Amino acid sequence: MAITNVKALTFDVFGTVVDWRSSLIREGEALGKAKGLGVDWAKFADSWRGLYQPAMDEVRSGRRSWTKLDDLHRESLEKLLVQFGIRGLSEAEIDHLNRAWHRLDPWPDSVPGLTRLKKKFVLATLSNGNVALIVNMAKYGGLPWDVVLGAEVARHYKPQPEAYLTTASLLGLAPDECMMVAAHNGDLAAASALGLRTAFVPRPTEHGPGQAKDVKPAREWDVVAKDFVDLAARLGC
Amino acid sequence: MAITNVKALTFDVFGTVVDWRSSLIREGEALGKAKGLGVDWAKFADSWRGLYQPAMDEVRSGRRSWTKLDDLHRESLEKLLVQFGIRGLSEAEIDHLNRAWHRLDPWPDSVPGLTRLKKKFVLATLSNGNVALIVNMAKYGGLPWDVVLGAEVARHYKPQPEAYLTTASLLGLAPDECMMVAAHNGDLAAASALGLRTAFVPRPTEHGPGQAKDVKPAREWDVVAKDFVDLAARLGC
Repeated sequence: MAITNVKALTFDVFGTVVDWRSSLIREGEALGKAKGLGVDWAKFADSWRGLYQPAMDEVRSGRRSWTKLDDLHRESLEKLLVQFGIRGLSEAEIDHLNRAWHRLDPWPDSVPGLTRLKKKFVLATLSNGNVALIVNMAKYGGLPWDVVLGAEVARHYKPQPEAYLTTASLLGLAPDECMMVAAHNGDLAAASALGLRTAFVPRPTEHGPGQAKDVKPAREWDVVAKDFVDLAARLGC
Repeated sequence: MAITNVKALTFDVFGTVVDWRSSLIREGEALGKAKGLGVDWAKFADSWRGLYQPAMDEVRSGRRSWTKLDDLHRESLEKLLVQFGIRGLSEAEIDHLNRAWHRLDPWPDSVPGLTRLKKKFVLATLSNGNVALIVNMAKYGGLPWDVVLGAEVARHYKPQPEAYLTTASLLGLAPDECMMVAAHNGDLAAASALGLRTAFVPRPTEHGPGQAKDVKPAREWDVVAKDFVDLAARLGC
């Protein structure tokens, strides 16, 4: 496990650093209460996330030109408002709901763990979220990133190689000087294939109760940690 | 002065946030002592900076393709090693000297001022320095940026409009929701022409004793502050 030359940790964000599902449910319930809407917000959150990969696939395939995640989220949201029979929202209210993705709560260990990790490593985001989304989320949740990189800057969505390689290149680092941190085996597999080091931090309730996927490491990743505080300890921080 | 809708401050870095000249002299003197070199390091620093704009002009004009500042600095450095008769440095020593730009000291008010400003605003770099340079400098000096943007991400050097407009766009903001902070009237003029708000913070010793340029505001910028702590006070932080 030759990870002594790792200089930067590159983080997946949705699910790995923040609990998107509980946060979306919270935002939905607040809106529902204010507007008198009878909606199953857990189902709404899962449906919104369900449209995430198909929307990015349109961009990955080249069928549509680069489109940032805020805009993909908005298109998906408009479909869901129809599907869930949600009417009577103003443009400002729809925009505010779309920006719920900018107000996702960190897992309880995220900020303490990142704060320790930041003393030894460059902390970079390598998310499919666009820069503004990740920056606003960091302000909201107190996430101490050194730099926000990833899909929008590379103009390629993970797991396309450009997302990882552009991030390493902008950091002035070789791939093996970067360690991808993610709760998703697929993300780590893509990073590993390009030479990045890998750390798996499971988030077994990301998708709510009964989650089957990504509850354990699919391979022998360089590091497996139970949360970000444990990751800091394992990396000598 | 309608600056109440400003959400992000975008910072020039060299000269405005860090004292590049004194830092380069310090680095040069340390090298000179270690290697027994008789060099006027103030003159060396000024000469290195003197090659900065001409090197970027090659890129701005389109005569050469995008080249990051670390690489331009290195080319300039190799010319200066010949010009100043500096011989016998290893590749590692030359690279370390080139990365002196990653180890520039903040002005004494920079970290305290930025720390206050960060509570109210998104703090983004909008520098001609490449991402790795700015990230490493932030780790070195404790500069609490929220996000590192600017020339490399836009693939255009200031004062080309793309540098400013790409930064605003990545922040998800209109130009007038951004305030450019710089010690250089020319940088503020370019930003202002595109609709950004402007804050001038003079650094009258940036170029050493006897500096004539940029010691005072050339126009009525939105804010003129004597340093970053004063800027924080003027912006209600």
